[in-house]
Amino acid sequence: MKATALLCLLVCIAITSASSQKLDSLSIESYTAAANGILKSGLTRMGAYKVLKELTSKVGARLSGSPQAAKAVEWGRKVMGEMGFQNVHLEPVMVPHWVRGPVEDARLLGPRGINRKLHICALGGSIATPPGGVTGEVIEVKSFEQLRALGDSAKGKIVFFNRPFDQTKFNTFEAYGGAVDQRGRGAVEAAKVGGVAAIVRSMSSRIDYVPHTGAMQYVDSVTKIPTAAVSTRDADIIDSLLASGEKVMLRLKLSCKQLPDVESANVVGELVGTEHPEEVIVVGGHLDSWDKGQGAHDDGAGCAQSIEALRLLKEMALKPRRTIRAVLFMNEENGLAGGKAYAAKDRPGEKPIAAIETDAGGFTPRGFGVQADSEVFEKIARWDFLFKGMDADRIVRGGGGADISPLARKGIPMIGLRVDEQRYFDYHHSDSDTFDKVNERELELGAIAISILSYTLAQEGI
Amino acid sequence: MKATALLCLLVCIAITSASSQKLDSLSIESYTAAANGILKSGLTRMGAYKVLKELTSKVGARLSGSPQAAKAVEWGRKVMGEMGFQNVHLEPVMVPHWVRGPVEDARLLGPRGINRKLHICALGGSIATPPGGVTGEVIEVKSFEQLRALGDSAKGKIVFFNRPFDQTKFNTFEAYGGAVDQRGRGAVEAAKVGGVAAIVRSMSSRIDYVPHTGAMQYVDSVTKIPTAAVSTRDADIIDSLLASGEKVMLRLKLSCKQLPDVESANVVGELVGTEHPEEVIVVGGHLDSWDKGQGAHDDGAGCAQSIEALRLLKEMALKPRRTIRAVLFMNEENGLAGGKAYAAKDRPGEKPIAAIETDAGGFTPRGFGVQADSEVFEKIARWDFLFKGMDADRIVRGGGGADISPLARKGIPMIGLRVDEQRYFDYHHSDSDTFDKVNERELELGAIAISILSYTLAQEGI
Repeated sequence: MKATALLCLLVCIAITSASSQKLDSLSIESYTAAANGILKSGLTRMGAYKVLKELTSKVGARLSGSPQAAKAVEWGRKVMGEMGFQNVHLEPVMVPHWVRGPVEDARLLGPRGINRKLHICALGGSIATPPGGVTGEVIEVKSFEQLRALGDSAKGKIVFFNRPFDQTKFNTFEAYGGAVDQRGRGAVEAAKVGGVAAIVRSMSSRIDYVPHTGAMQYVDSVTKIPTAAVSTRDADIIDSLLASGEKVMLRLKLSCKQLPDVESANVVGELVGTEHPEEVIVVGGHLDSWDKGQGAHDDGAGCAQSIEALRLLKEMALKPRRTIRAVLFMNEENGLAGGKAYAAKDRPGEKPIAAIETDAGGFTPRGFGVQADSEVFEKIARWDFLFKGMDADRIVRGGGGADISPLARKGIPMIGLRVDEQRYFDYHHSDSDTFDKVNERELELGAIAISILSYTLAQEGI
Repeated sequence: MKATALLCLLVCIAITSASSQKLDSLSIESYTAAANGILKSGLTRMGAYKVLKELTSKVGARLSGSPQAAKAVEWGRKVMGEMGFQNVHLEPVMVPHWVRGPVEDARLLGPRGINRKLHICALGGSIATPPGGVTGEVIEVKSFEQLRALGDSAKGKIVFFNRPFDQTKFNTFEAYGGAVDQRGRGAVEAAKVGGVAAIVRSMSSRIDYVPHTGAMQYVDSVTKIPTAAVSTRDADIIDSLLASGEKVMLRLKLSCKQLPDVESANVVGELVGTEHPEEVIVVGGHLDSWDKGQGAHDDGAGCAQSIEALRLLKEMALKPRRTIRAVLFMNEENGLAGGKAYAAKDRPGEKPIAAIETDAGGFTPRGFGVQADSEVFEKIARWDFLFKGMDADRIVRGGGGADISPLARKGIPMIGLRVDEQRYFDYHHSDSDTFDKVNERELELGAIAISILSYTLAQEGI
């Protein structure tokens, strides 16, 4: 048995090395040195934080179609130019132009003479109410099934969607995913049963008075009714009143408007590959934000990190063999026009090989989610050792980002930066998403991770 | 070869199962169910946050020997009692009683008529200056070697220790460790070369005007001189002035005092084991804090998590076979009297089997550091699957906590909760360490991780 055991051991070792290496030892050494250098450089200069500070303070919130979004585009071009990126240019794209307008008011008017202001904000895309508002009795539901089961009793009422963000999930994106249908489709479903307006509990991991906006959609075949998000604390108050069996009346006033589409742009800059310039790795986040807060985590962080990822390579004089292209996408929040236009654009002679997005907030990175065939996934997963020193070496299947999803649909491997997601929905789409919520080191570590991955992709190809 | 390959595979599988299991499948199932239940329960109630809110708002900062520390002890006993823990009691311990006093002032007095207030705070344990202060020329050093090399030229001067917290390290505790000798031994080393006072750059990951205090030590054979921390931004200002070659004068006034030792206590409460009550797992943090901020992350978080870890087991009606004992240690910050007294106390018939500490802030947990012999380490490391669902399954060698280090010196396995440490030194030992810097979910996840580990230890033993 001894000889067999030894043989076994040898086979085991052979299997192990075959699956864990593929890079020769010289490459391992040189990539490790590059990764360590990028880490050190990044944490010395904290470039992502500087870029994000500029974006949030000089531009601030920047909803698609707004003058601030136009300013952000110019800012992005200027920053990339000043950093010496190559082929810095804008790629025009038409985007929707929805404006919130000056009036945004909701009041509880009863029971028992209550007259209480609620903390609300229109959902992105909502129509306005008549100037005098929409007044109606509130009817609460937790699901569309429950709403449909109500039959006629929702007619003429204000439908209140109150299925909460599920705090018991470790993965906050899952919790968000479990609630967000109410925001996206609530107005349509409410209108189908005769509701006159829809209010939706904010998709937030905090119980407070901050409402969180986000996109909603109408469909042509259903009457459009106005819709707004209400803060989690207000939602709880309405729920308690209803639970006591009393009739709750609400008046909602919104003055939002959909204006004609506007020309805007994706902002693009590159480090051109020295050996295969035609092979391109896209690194991006989205430049637009909601019109709340400063769009710091969502997704100023991703833009700052994408820019910093390239800047770090320049600073380190690491010359990528393939082209690394930073793209600040326009209009992720309410249309995805930038992401679609980027993927649709004809780029003769070009071969996109991977796209990386960071759009989960500027928090400590933990790894990457890779949506690609097994061979590509396994190749990338074998580079995990480059991220071990920063505890960001969890490379898992699945992931990506909205802006690069049109590229993925064309078969291009799509990668998303995975971060510590516990705080994201405290801030997301609200007045709380401001620069002071971003930690300098956490933000930079994300940029560093992307820089290392994009460089390795550029050297090794797919 | 085919048969050999198959045999190989079987041996491989056998090796794998031997090393990764040890628990039978029924146990795996039951521990997994317990872990999932604890996770869900914790994130539903967020008990740790509630406890920490109470401690920080009702008690606030609580330096050993202070009336607030006494209040914290009573608070701890009350909370554990109300939660129905068993054998709730105090274990008396004498602690030092240092007070900051009302006067704390530092001014740059020159060059060129500058009269600028600096943001400083006395280091814990420092003597006072004479009422008129100590005035002297500032001499800057980055290390004790450099200081010693100065010879007589430091005589009569105020020594300024300005070796920064190394931001380039991913592990912020390493960065802290690389700077903290200046705080602990700076006054002694400065006095040895004739310095009249020592000021020390704050050990912080931020550049701002917030000074960070911490313990310093005198030795009997060397003249005691007063010593204070200066904010990182002020440190940079002094450094720039000195770099310009000008003579920088500073006046330091401190009114701190060392009062006679005071009786205080460790606060203890238990879930008594159903099968081996004499075998004890300690779960703790430290109840004292510095007299700055609210001691929220350091280490109110650890106290709240230790209490919550036990409460979760009670809520889930999970009955530990061995005793799980929560200990809120007194005097970690400036003496470790509580930790030493706990370990020194005679406990007839008792067999301590492990001690877990959480004292790295209430941030998202990533795993545990285990200081134990290989067999124990490997046993605990095999439980990593219980923490996978919350991405906290990195169980590594080495770690623990100051309060439980006296237990470790007696050979008891010592375990420290490892957390995302990027933000810790933004707040540590300063006015910034307040409740609002703690995220509810991140804090609770730490409590959950400790609850799961202590329960598994209680069931499986060591």
